[in-house]
Amino acid sequence: MKEKLNIIKIGGNVINDSTQLTSFLKNFAAIKGLKILVHGGGRKATELAKKLQLEPKMIEGRRVTDIANLEVVTMVYAGLLNKSVVATLQQNNCNALGLSGADGNIIKAHKRIVKDIDYGFAGDIDTVDSSVIQTFLGAELTPVFCAITHDKNGQLLNTNADTIASEVASALAESYEVILTYCFEKNGVLKDVNDNDSVIENINTETYQVLKDAGIIAEGMLPKLQNCFYALNNGVSKIVIGNPTVINNKNQKYTSLTI
Amino acid sequence: MKEKLNIIKIGGNVINDSTQLTSFLKNFAAIKGLKILVHGGGRKATELAKKLQLEPKMIEGRRVTDIANLEVVTMVYAGLLNKSVVATLQQNNCNALGLSGADGNIIKAHKRIVKDIDYGFAGDIDTVDSSVIQTFLGAELTPVFCAITHDKNGQLLNTNADTIASEVASALAESYEVILTYCFEKNGVLKDVNDNDSVIENINTETYQVLKDAGIIAEGMLPKLQNCFYALNNGVSKIVIGNPTVINNKNQKYTSLTI
Repeated sequence: MKEKLNIIKIGGNVINDSTQLTSFLKNFAAIKGLKILVHGGGRKATELAKKLQLEPKMIEGRRVTDIANLEVVTMVYAGLLNKSVVATLQQNNCNALGLSGADGNIIKAHKRIVKDIDYGFAGDIDTVDSSVIQTFLGAELTPVFCAITHDKNGQLLNTNADTIASEVASALAESYEVILTYCFEKNGVLKDVNDNDSVIENINTETYQVLKDAGIIAEGMLPKLQNCFYALNNGVSKIVIGNPTVINNKNQKYTSLTI
Repeated sequence: MKEKLNIIKIGGNVINDSTQLTSFLKNFAAIKGLKILVHGGGRKATELAKKLQLEPKMIEGRRVTDIANLEVVTMVYAGLLNKSVVATLQQNNCNALGLSGADGNIIKAHKRIVKDIDYGFAGDIDTVDSSVIQTFLGAELTPVFCAITHDKNGQLLNTNADTIASEVASALAESYEVILTYCFEKNGVLKDVNDNDSVIENINTETYQVLKDAGIIAEGMLPKLQNCFYALNNGVSKIVIGNPTVINNKNQKYTSLTI
C-alpha cells in the first residue's frame, strides 16, 4: 500500500490575511504524515509593483509578466512570502523547505508560446522531477513551493500555482496515495455563486460536463477544475476544494472530485 | 579519508556585476565534487530600499535592519538574487538548491542582543544543522545559501554572509575535508591596500597577530579574518581569500590561511 501524501494549495485570500495565514499554517503543521504546501501570490506583489510605479499589464483579464514584474513576483513569491511561510511553519515544528521550481531543477517550464497574446515571462510546465521531492520527503522535510519555475536556460518564469499543485500531485501519484486540496475563498464549488452554503459535494467527469453546460461552473472555476481532472487522470486519489479550514475541520463542507 | 567539500562565498562585488556573476557561476558550476555557495547581498537591496523611500539606517558604519528593511533584504537576497543564481547554475548543469537558514531549520540564529547599539533584525548564529546539508549533498544537490536566517520562533533575520560561510564550513568539517574560499574585490589580504599585487600569500595565527599589531590588517578585514580563524579552529582544512577568478585560475595569487 502506498504511503499517504497531502498536497495543499493556498491562494491569495489566505496569504493576504496574516491572522488567517498564521492560523492556517498552524493547522497545516499539525497534519500528520507526509505533506507539501503550494502557495500562490496575493496582494503583496501588486502593492510592490505599484510602489515601484510599474504599470500592471493585463490582457483579457490575465496578468502579463514583463521583466520588471517578473523581478517583483520573484522577490515577493520566492523571497518574502515563501520564507515567511517557512519560518512560521518552523515555529510550529514543521520542518519546511522553501522551493521554487528552479531549486533542484524540480519544475522545468517553458516561456508560454505566443499565439494571440504575449504573456511575457509566464511559464507552462514541461516536467516535474518527483525523485528530488521524494528525497526531501524521505528526509522528513515538508516542501513549500512558490509559483516560480525556470526553463533550465537561466530564465525564471511566473507560473500558475494551481497548475503547480496539480503537476506536482500528478508526478507523485505513482509513488504515493496523493490527496490534493485546493483552498480558496469559497466553501467549495457552489451551485449559486452568491450562496456559500450551496456547496456541490461531489463532482465527477460526467456531472462536471453537465454543470459546465448549464453554466454553473464557469469563469475562474473552469481552469481550476481542469487542473483537478488532469491530476485525477494522472492517478491522484482524491481532490478536495474548500475553504482553508477544510484541512482540519471535519464538519466543514467541501467539494470532492472523482473521475 | 574524508570527501573533499568546497564552500565558496561571494559578496556584493560579484553579485553587482552581471557579466562577472555569469562568468563566476559558470566556473563554480565546473568545480568537480561536492560544493556549496554562500552569497551576500549587493547593491540591489539598497536600490530597492531607495525606490521604496526607506531611509538606510546606519550606526557606526553598520547597517541597522528595521522591519521594512528586513522585508527588502528577504525579497532581494532570498528571492531575486538566490533564485537568479540557482537558475543560472541550473543552466550550467549544476543542480543548485537555494536556501535560507529557515529552510530545513538549517541555520538557527537569535536577534542580536542590544548592548550599546540596536541592530534591529540582525541575526547571530546559534546552530547549523549539518545533517540536512549532508542529505542534500548526498542527493547530488548543490546548496546555495543567502544571508537570511531565522530564530525558530517565526522571525527571519538578516545575517552576515561571511559568518554563514564560516559557520556552515565549521559544522561540516567533521564529515568532510572542507576548503573554504572567500571571494572579494581584492586579490587577497594585501600588505598595501592600494596595491593589488601585494598579496600576503600565507597567514597563520602568529603572523595574523603581527600583521594586526602593525595595522596592516585592519577595518573590514578584521571580522573576515576572525571568521576564517574560527573556521580553522573548528576543523576546516584550508581557507583561501582571493578574487573570484581564484576558484579556477591556478596562477591567480591569493592568501592562504592556516592555524
